[in-house]
Amino acid sequence: MKKVAIQGGGGSNHEIAAKAYFETDNIATVECNSFEELFSTLKEDHSIYGIIAIENTLVGSILQNYTLLKDSGMVIIGEYKLRIKHQLLALPGERLEDIREVHSHPMALAQCSDFFKQYPHIKMISRDDTALSGKWIRDNQLKGMAAIAPALAAEKYNLDIIAKDIETNKRNFTRFLIISHKEKIALEDILTQQPINKSSLVFALPHAEGSLSKVLSILAFYNINLSKIQSLPVVGSEWEYLFYIDLVFEDYKRYQQSLNAIRPLTRNLKSLGEYHVGKRSFDTVSNDNKPLSEQKTF
Amino acid sequence: MKKVAIQGGGGSNHEIAAKAYFETDNIATVECNSFEELFSTLKEDHSIYGIIAIENTLVGSILQNYTLLKDSGMVIIGEYKLRIKHQLLALPGERLEDIREVHSHPMALAQCSDFFKQYPHIKMISRDDTALSGKWIRDNQLKGMAAIAPALAAEKYNLDIIAKDIETNKRNFTRFLIISHKEKIALEDILTQQPINKSSLVFALPHAEGSLSKVLSILAFYNINLSKIQSLPVVGSEWEYLFYIDLVFEDYKRYQQSLNAIRPLTRNLKSLGEYHVGKRSFDTVSNDNKPLSEQKTF
Repeated sequence: MKKVAIQGGGGSNHEIAAKAYFETDNIATVECNSFEELFSTLKEDHSIYGIIAIENTLVGSILQNYTLLKDSGMVIIGEYKLRIKHQLLALPGERLEDIREVHSHPMALAQCSDFFKQYPHIKMISRDDTALSGKWIRDNQLKGMAAIAPALAAEKYNLDIIAKDIETNKRNFTRFLIISHKEKIALEDILTQQPINKSSLVFALPHAEGSLSKVLSILAFYNINLSKIQSLPVVGSEWEYLFYIDLVFEDYKRYQQSLNAIRPLTRNLKSLGEYHVGKRSFDTVSNDNKPLSEQKTF
Repeated sequence: MKKVAIQGGGGSNHEIAAKAYFETDNIATVECNSFEELFSTLKEDHSIYGIIAIENTLVGSILQNYTLLKDSGMVIIGEYKLRIKHQLLALPGERLEDIREVHSHPMALAQCSDFFKQYPHIKMISRDDTALSGKWIRDNQLKGMAAIAPALAAEKYNLDIIAKDIETNKRNFTRFLIISHKEKIALEDILTQQPINKSSLVFALPHAEGSLSKVLSILAFYNINLSKIQSLPVVGSEWEYLFYIDLVFEDYKRYQQSLNAIRPLTRNLKSLGEYHVGKRSFDTVSNDNKPLSEQKTF
């Protein structure tokens, strides 16, 4: 059975995304209290996969996870985009009017703020994890308390959903990366199962006119497309900007040649992983029911 | 006296940044409970300036504010980068060991999470604002409660700083934009006071190979530099990506010509404002004590 390290407890969005990516409920999750702990776990045991949230359509990139990934010995082996839905969970029998405190991850609290404007007397309490907030309510049989968590957590911890889909914005997708130790990839030869057609790069650029334009021109000449670009100022550094770029391509050899072509114009060019363009859960709100494998690029 | 709408209460980082930008303590702040309220306030009264956080070195862009700005009739007239320091405030005489609950904005709670790992019994409670959490403790004389807020809030609400500079990462800068109604700018002719050498653009690009590369090449041909670029997937849209770009230039006429040159290759190209490259508060941690007017570009 596959072992997958997830951030947060069982029933979290990380577990949902892991099962969707591996297309089976039959995985053994290793629960980690933080992303730092998740990376340490993978470092110690090369047989474990990991899954980390990397960006969200509402809040953008999770820059801390980019930093952790860049500095770890791990590589991206796949991706999955999950539509995020938040449920309000409480002990069986509780009603919304009984609730005095709601506990969840700060991101989940913020994403449901419109819902709670109707209930200004409910205290919003910040905790490390969505699903574990539910587990804590169950374990301690806490009346008057609710958690914001995925539906899977309600099932797992035998809680009632007392308010459904309470997220303010329904166009709320999180992109998860599936990561693994480099040596593990070589062992399992995952890469032969699906063609590699996507890559995530990080590099720095000198403070020079048109330095990014040159890099993107070369990638275009090699028919390499982009599906993401983000500059990041590096405070207190001589090299003022880092760039995170996702590339999409058909010809793997051309992609490798393009890296050789841009390397001399960049600094610390590093691949965070080469993988197959991922799938995503369907968005029941928009008409955009196409799978992500039809990746749009620029 | 200048009237400036700020998000949050008096003593917040928005007030600190506003005073620093206008180089005077002598401003009348208009306190708004949310960024939505701030934009409504400016729409109703054209004599008021506004200030909004737009990006942070740790968490990246505040995408919601980009959306609000893009859809409002407001334009950027300036920018200021502030080093963010978080203080723990409580009623005079309170000590850290008395504290059972800490209240603040979810971002501030998250940015001080390392500090509170030593005190797992302290509940972290999410509220709309940093400074107003302190005011609420003062108004209700709440013992055992603390707020994470700037030092200015301690002064304003007569609270003690019981733990100083508790932010996890000291390289924590927030970039604020000073905004105003378009008509106000014409009236006051602010633009003649300092040369315009920076501009923030938003545009969409078609799903076409190398479409971004073409736009950046043209900007480079016109000697226009970039200081920020971020792609943003638009869920459920035929036009899959929005781009937020900051440009830096010396020759205003050349900049205008470059916009005309890229317009036919983009869709919905819009300037969010043209302004003078901003200053920032000094970073006492790094050696990087240069003012931001020496803006680095790529």
